Amino acid sequence: MNAPIRLLVWNEYLHEVEEPAIEADYPDGIHGAIADGLRELLPEASVRTATLGEPEHGLTEAALADTDVLFWWGHRAHEDVSDAIVDRVCEQVLAGMGLVVLHSGHFSRVFTRLMGTTCSLRWRNEGERELVWTVAPAHPIAVGVPNPLVLDAHETYGEFFDIPAPDELVFISGFEGGEVFRSGVTFQRGRGRVFYFSPGDQKYPIYHRPDIRRVLANAAEWARPTGPRNLPVVTNPRRGSHA
Amino acid sequence: MNAPIRLLVWNEYLHEVEEPAIEADYPDGIHGAIADGLRELLPEASVRTATLGEPEHGLTEAALADTDVLFWWGHRAHEDVSDAIVDRVCEQVLAGMGLVVLHSGHFSRVFTRLMGTTCSLRWRNEGERELVWTVAPAHPIAVGVPNPLVLDAHETYGEFFDIPAPDELVFISGFEGGEVFRSGVTFQRGRGRVFYFSPGDQKYPIYHRPDIRRVLANAAEWARPTGPRNLPVVTNPRRGSHA
Amino acid sequence: MNAPIRLLVWNEYLHEVEEPAIEADYPDGIHGAIADGLRELLPEASVRTATLGEPEHGLTEAALADTDVLFWWGHRAHEDVSDAIVDRVCEQVLAGMGLVVLHSGHFSRVFTRLMGTTCSLRWRNEGERELVWTVAPAHPIAVGVPNPLVLDAHETYGEFFDIPAPDELVFISGFEGGEVFRSGVTFQRGRGRVFYFSPGDQKYPIYHRPDIRRVLANAAEWARPTGPRNLPVVTNPRRGSHA
Amino acid sequence: MNAPIRLLVWNEYLHEVEEPAIEADYPDGIHGAIADGLRELLPEASVRTATLGEPEHGLTEAALADTDVLFWWGHRAHEDVSDAIVDRVCEQVLAGMGLVVLHSGHFSRVFTRLMGTTCSLRWRNEGERELVWTVAPAHPIAVGVPNPLVLDAHETYGEFFDIPAPDELVFISGFEGGEVFRSGVTFQRGRGRVFYFSPGDQKYPIYHRPDIRRVLANAAEWARPTGPRNLPVVTNPRRGSHA
Repeated sequence: MNAPIRLLVWNEYLHEVEEPAIEADYPDGIHGAIADGLRELLPEASVRTATLGEPEHGLTEAALADTDVLFWWGHRAHEDVSDAIVDRVCEQVLAGMGLVVLHSGHFSRVFTRLMGTTCSLRWRNEGERELVWTVAPAHPIAVGVPNPLVLDAHETYGEFFDIPAPDELVFISGFEGGEVFRSGVTFQRGRGRVFYFSPGDQKYPIYHRPDIRRVLANAAEWARPTGPRNLPVVTNPRRGSHA
Repeated sequence: MNAPIRLLVWNEYLHEVEEPAIEADYPDGIHGAIADGLRELLPEASVRTATLGEPEHGLTEAALADTDVLFWWGHRAHEDVSDAIVDRVCEQVLAGMGLVVLHSGHFSRVFTRLMGTTCSLRWRNEGERELVWTVAPAHPIAVGVPNPLVLDAHETYGEFFDIPAPDELVFISGFEGGEVFRSGVTFQRGRGRVFYFSPGDQKYPIYHRPDIRRVLANAAEWARPTGPRNLPVVTNPRRGSHA
Repeated sequence: MNAPIRLLVWNEYLHEVEEPAIEADYPDGIHGAIADGLRELLPEASVRTATLGEPEHGLTEAALADTDVLFWWGHRAHEDVSDAIVDRVCEQVLAGMGLVVLHSGHFSRVFTRLMGTTCSLRWRNEGERELVWTVAPAHPIAVGVPNPLVLDAHETYGEFFDIPAPDELVFISGFEGGEVFRSGVTFQRGRGRVFYFSPGDQKYPIYHRPDIRRVLANAAEWARPTGPRNLPVVTNPRRGSHA
Repeated sequence: MNAPIRLLVWNEYLHEVEEPAIEADYPDGIHGAIADGLRELLPEASVRTATLGEPEHGLTEAALADTDVLFWWGHRAHEDVSDAIVDRVCEQVLAGMGLVVLHSGHFSRVFTRLMGTTCSLRWRNEGERELVWTVAPAHPIAVGVPNPLVLDAHETYGEFFDIPAPDELVFISGFEGGEVFRSGVTFQRGRGRVFYFSPGDQKYPIYHRPDIRRVLANAAEWARPTGPRNLPVVTNPRRGSHA
């Protein structure tokens, strides 16, 4: 567990290129800001980035083999991620790679496939206040995170969020309009740990904030693999082979 | 499962006697209003009530033996419930009796003993709006309940609510001040089913409302025992006694 | 909840046609024996069957619309179930239809898609004893089931079973060779309830047994929908539309 | 997280004193063997021991304040642990201290109080084989543990084990006589992490084994507090105090 953690931040990288206001907030892309935060709080980590437009979306076999935890930000282009790459990422998660899915990534094909549900939700985007409350104060992902974490303006997500019952419920957000949302949830899938964290809409540049960066750094540490990467497979051992 | 369900509604019955405003809202006591709602929605049910001031607090061995699901409302007098009765109620729950704990009953000795935690929480009472959101829409307790269920004025409860991770999270409330609260949660303890539902402060007479009554009637049906009442006990069967 | 439950038993129906020994055990097919058991224990139920070889595998839109709970038995022909039918069945489950997956159906495309994992496991088939132990004695699926339920000879399944952590663990099997297996597990997916039950290999005609039939009838009742069939969808309601 | 972990191993220390065969297996007591194993695998840890016969059973305020994770072995003398010490230990767990409960400690007053259930189970002691299977292969407590871990002779524990549904099920044991048992289970209670591990009967000196020591060392690391020790308490903050 003492080797430096290897992190890969993936972003579709479209809003920042096409919308000047978002480019102004994120001149190095959303992935760039997330990566900066991870480098800041985890100085020993290896932090790389990848985007949709690169060959194989930057998610080559070699890149994933070299990744302990993959961060995923996507919104408009979920359908542009190729089948082969969705297969590859999901297989790596089941084999043990950690995965942190951010904001509108709830509708990414990687996340919906790992969940098996629609992952649909209620939303509005009127820039209202979001309070992120910790409901599992001793969870490693919540350590050092203010309670509540206050976002003065953000997109509103609300229940019903169609996910399987999470293994652990870490954060619940309350919104100015009265909505609530399970905004920080964990899932084990195969040998891999998955954390979904809802804050992070492209219009509100929260990935520069220390408190949000603390959540992401904690999630990176929490999701890292505990052992070698192996996809669970069917076996047919003879009687007594275990004894 | 077809025998009429037998329900017992317990209330400490102090606020209604001592505070005229509350007596005006609940002339038959909080227990009376809850019982009326259960009779209305479950016309075949047997519904009785019991209060702190009765001998053995109305919770005799015979009374509990005749009860499928016990409802519990208490606030000021948790410490006045005798040890023997706390023991008796907990034992019956572990043996299979259903239990529905309401509002400030989170601090009842019955509930804290079954949980094993402090059951502490954050609170304010300024009559603000509470929205009760369903996060498990197919759960039997949520059937027919509006989403959200809107309480224009209620006491505010907030996280961190110090309970074990519930088996099922059915409702999350969002409050006008931004607080959130896991307001409908289920737990299996021994052979008994436990449901905690936070709405129901004495100052806001919500137990007359059809939507709240729907939650309580659903909870009664959900919590009823599935089999004979038996406390789990240690056993020492010989080898092969099962084969 | 009082309308007669509508059950559909699906079977690939290949072993019984191709292997005389299995045909002798199941002259009406595995689906026929399961359906007989359901009719016996749930006399008011409507019980139909469908098989792989029928048009649309017998799983037409109309057939599923008329089904509260679908039972699924498959082994050799998982890949022969068409994409369209897998999509259709999964969508109906997420919308509220109950699903009971049996034995080697752990590798069906319907089940693996709803789980999001490989669903791989350890196995041997040497006809050894299986004891099915109840670890949730008050669960509706366990009511009336002997503890343990003894199968003198059955295929051995063993851990690690690569499924998400189940919502409820009802049965654990112990095998003569020392293997253990989470043999009765529940999952909520969308609005639908899913129960996986591992006993039922084609070589051991256990679907004629009263105790196994009890499990299946209980599962049918447990998995039936609690409300109207609706696929969760994303919504964008305006502020205050709930208040 | 980098300060050396502080471990305290508590044992009633009666069998080893009164029964020569057990003294021969554990000349330094069961606590001595457990402590040796922890020192061996966690060389930077501070490992102390305490026993029932010491003043305050060795569990003074100061001793607990200096403990990150408490190990608990007890069997015959659960009732001899004073109320005050049970209160103190439980309060420290709820405030964040880790707790690892071993074998017959399932009936300790500390464990039953934190669980809220009877913690009863089925047992036989005929020295048969126990196989401890990992059902959560990526869980930190399972890392480096053989699957299965084979105990050629041990006491048999069986279901139904009357505990609340665990947060995580790590190990299931299968026994020669066909019994199964949830032998490694985790619970969060308040801010504290609890792990129960069933192997470790006094008649079978397994605490000298490297594989069992690996489980205990992993559990120590897993259960250590993530933040400062604070008992959850009720709070009454004013509106907007969080914003």
